[in-house]
Amino acid sequence: MNSMKLGLVGIGKIARDQHVPALARSIDFDLCAAASRHNRLEGVDHYPNVEEMLAARPELDAVSLCTPPDGRYEQAAAVLRAGKHLMLEKPPAATVSEIEALALMAAASGVTLCATWHSREAAEVDAARDWLAGKRIAAVRIRWKEDIRQWHPGQDWILAAGGFGVFDPGINALSIATQILPDPLVVTGAVLSVPTNRVSPIAASIALRTGDAPVAAEFDFLQTGQQSWDIEVDTDAGVLRLRDGGSRLELPDAAPLAGPNEEYARLYRRFAELVRAGESDVDLRPLQLVADAFLVGERRVVEPFDF
Amino acid sequence: MNSMKLGLVGIGKIARDQHVPALARSIDFDLCAAASRHNRLEGVDHYPNVEEMLAARPELDAVSLCTPPDGRYEQAAAVLRAGKHLMLEKPPAATVSEIEALALMAAASGVTLCATWHSREAAEVDAARDWLAGKRIAAVRIRWKEDIRQWHPGQDWILAAGGFGVFDPGINALSIATQILPDPLVVTGAVLSVPTNRVSPIAASIALRTGDAPVAAEFDFLQTGQQSWDIEVDTDAGVLRLRDGGSRLELPDAAPLAGPNEEYARLYRRFAELVRAGESDVDLRPLQLVADAFLVGERRVVEPFDF
Repeated sequence: MNSMKLGLVGIGKIARDQHVPALARSIDFDLCAAASRHNRLEGVDHYPNVEEMLAARPELDAVSLCTPPDGRYEQAAAVLRAGKHLMLEKPPAATVSEIEALALMAAASGVTLCATWHSREAAEVDAARDWLAGKRIAAVRIRWKEDIRQWHPGQDWILAAGGFGVFDPGINALSIATQILPDPLVVTGAVLSVPTNRVSPIAASIALRTGDAPVAAEFDFLQTGQQSWDIEVDTDAGVLRLRDGGSRLELPDAAPLAGPNEEYARLYRRFAELVRAGESDVDLRPLQLVADAFLVGERRVVEPFDF
Repeated sequence: MNSMKLGLVGIGKIARDQHVPALARSIDFDLCAAASRHNRLEGVDHYPNVEEMLAARPELDAVSLCTPPDGRYEQAAAVLRAGKHLMLEKPPAATVSEIEALALMAAASGVTLCATWHSREAAEVDAARDWLAGKRIAAVRIRWKEDIRQWHPGQDWILAAGGFGVFDPGINALSIATQILPDPLVVTGAVLSVPTNRVSPIAASIALRTGDAPVAAEFDFLQTGQQSWDIEVDTDAGVLRLRDGGSRLELPDAAPLAGPNEEYARLYRRFAELVRAGESDVDLRPLQLVADAFLVGERRVVEPFDF
């Protein structure tokens, strides 16, 4: 099958770090056009926004959106109305109702909507899910602690309304947890720490349950030194430790497993498979859990944050 | 068919004002037991909590929960695990993930779960929905403004974490809007006004869309004098005005329609029908929209509130 012509929208850090390299190696997609208000990609036709890209390039088969979540709904709706297949960087939209409406639009237009969760494509996530299947879960601890200044330098939008704050990385943990745990996750409480000069939390403690087991999630954006992207699951067969964002798996009485990072290559491969099968993939559970944490969360005001 | 034996949990204002009178007239249910930490119902066997009521009264067919949403999940899970049909006062749980998990439990236990939205049972809601079907919606305005001191005297829980604040009445408007509007509602932004001494908002402005039409919702808990529970819909056939919480309908070139308040009688009738049909009814869209508003909402600190 011929490769599909793809337009990339939102040329920021995640586009340059992940999408462009993955597309350069993709046999499924040709990166033919890019849309961004401020940034350009060398050697790729440029448009100031998605609407102008769609109008100028009717031959595009698909669009990949990696703009910040706030404002992505209108862009996504324009793509779907134009009859193009659409892949969404995580989180898929600013609200759950937005992504539900987009799923309906995609179905009505007969195109593929692929709401991606890149951390689910980390090397050892599938192995963790398989090992946990059928085991009794006693407790789960999630620690997702990183340095915002290192990983999101100057990205003020992330701490603005609709930017999710520390849930922007934290939703990656929730996307893995919903993938590997046999029972649904339920949010029962949260404490959100919000800097005096920001709207979204810079740290959060979330209390959840899965089946009868308590789940404690700690998200922190101010972690210097050792970074943590770890999920530990106590089971009747010992402790599972999924580390480094899902790329390293430690199981009882076994040597650690660790695979290479092929997250975005796998995402684009999956998107192509969905298009060819005429299917969509929209799992809104991770975003749902974030919305729930905001809904029940107590807020603590903490000291101002500046990059 | 014989009437079903029902236990009522949470003997607060809504139980006394609505549930008990509706049950007194119900041919479907006999109110046999009540559970409440502090309050009793004259002439009804009393238990200090749902677990003790379930243990002492295995003959109960059904339970109706009208405790505050925070903490209701564990109570509901206990009822479903005991194999009893369950009716939930709105909002059905503190989080969307809680109500989704409860729906799975009900299905696994083979019992009916009925998540109620009493405002949908207001006299003119069905007529409003029927009139709007097939019409082109241009804009929607929701004004839900009431005096918290009059309607929720001393209910501090409503302004605590998980109490929803002004969304406790506001979710009634959203339950009607999701019922009468032909297209899904999508939250795109919100401003939440939170008193310095409280956690949940005492006023909120929510920006939504339905199809191509803007929807503006204004919720206020500090409305004195004239109270407003109104939804106005601009259409290609004129303006629909659904007033007084859904009990009065004003249509173009027609005399106003207004029916009596039979909301809770209709809820219990509906619950009985679902039990007899072996079905559940769990529409989480209104709660979803509230969670979305909390997720994207900007917060404004406003002056302290005391009852």
